[in-house]
Amino acid sequence: MSSPAHHVAYFPVEDLPTAEVDRLEELYGGLADAVRDLIDAAVTTDPPAELLAEAARVLTGLTEDLRVRQTDGALGVRHNGQGRTWSWGNAVIGPRNATAPPLEVVGPDEDGRVTAEVVLGPTHQDEPGVLHPGAAAKLLDHLMGVTAADRRRLTMTGTLTITHHRPTPLGPVSLAGWIAREEGSKVFVHAELADPDGVTVEAEGVFIIPRWARDAD
Amino acid sequence: MSSPAHHVAYFPVEDLPTAEVDRLEELYGGLADAVRDLIDAAVTTDPPAELLAEAARVLTGLTEDLRVRQTDGALGVRHNGQGRTWSWGNAVIGPRNATAPPLEVVGPDEDGRVTAEVVLGPTHQDEPGVLHPGAAAKLLDHLMGVTAADRRRLTMTGTLTITHHRPTPLGPVSLAGWIAREEGSKVFVHAELADPDGVTVEAEGVFIIPRWARDAD
Repeated sequence: MSSPAHHVAYFPVEDLPTAEVDRLEELYGGLADAVRDLIDAAVTTDPPAELLAEAARVLTGLTEDLRVRQTDGALGVRHNGQGRTWSWGNAVIGPRNATAPPLEVVGPDEDGRVTAEVVLGPTHQDEPGVLHPGAAAKLLDHLMGVTAADRRRLTMTGTLTITHHRPTPLGPVSLAGWIAREEGSKVFVHAELADPDGVTVEAEGVFIIPRWARDAD
Repeated sequence: MSSPAHHVAYFPVEDLPTAEVDRLEELYGGLADAVRDLIDAAVTTDPPAELLAEAARVLTGLTEDLRVRQTDGALGVRHNGQGRTWSWGNAVIGPRNATAPPLEVVGPDEDGRVTAEVVLGPTHQDEPGVLHPGAAAKLLDHLMGVTAADRRRLTMTGTLTITHHRPTPLGPVSLAGWIAREEGSKVFVHAELADPDGVTVEAEGVFIIPRWARDAD
């Protein structure tokens, strides 16, 4: 991502070399990965009551330790002068956010397609074995936002329409998005979510380039 | 919820007295609450590297302990013969799912309104301090599904349209949904998400009563 002036207020610049960003991401991401495993184990665990109480006690102590030193402010999108961006706390892609899968969004490629592959486990569940339709909407919203931004501008979700063709089973899913057309400040994005048997969810989104970002251009 | 025949396959009946369901929910919910606190602490922690590595090691051991005995199958919606339903693993309302807030959905009241109040912290974040629009969609989808089901039938999300009027800050939000109209197998639901200053997101949903559920009626 380039760093035009209008990005500075919204996406703070940090004077961290890319190698240091990578190192910290791996360090903190390792903790979040361990928390993700714990979340999955906890949702279907069925141990003796004593173990549950002991586990909760250990976790409370660990939480106190981690709270001793906290970063100031929120973990939003940041970037350095070398074209590296990071978004550690993000609800969908944040490697430090254990509630995020995290989704690894790839692209846009030379055809303008933005894609992601992810395996969705029991924490994304609605009915038994079925992906929560709201969880599908959450992932699609993010991928479509990346698609609309097209690596060169800031956009915000205006309207998102999600259509479910059939329930999506938990397990491996793939997402793909592309820009259908643009009109002034509006970017129209189409996206699909598919299980191994085909497309289960389609989405249309209108993403907005905010006036202040247009004015800065 | 009543237990007509067509619910049995989809929402398994368990022969657990309500008091025992409540006891287990508190027991397992306590572990998930401890995990939720840990997730929040981990997303913005900034401790010495040694503590991070030690925390990950402790968590890995705890995860192994919790995996020793796991429930069979998924934690979908269950109900007993006393009108108690539970949905422990659900991605939005599941008390045992540490990635769920969990949302406490209330109603419908006598005016048909279904509501929820929740404080959304840093794990629901997109830009700094701003609720991820996909996270808003996820919560709205679930509340609107409860609204459409109206305590008496099974419905599935067909189409969901989310319109953002302005970014929603992290913090306390309230949600409300109601049935706008019904046509055959389609239930049209309207919903809003508001911060303390007013409505930030509106949603329209078409929820479908599946054919097999209609036939069973």
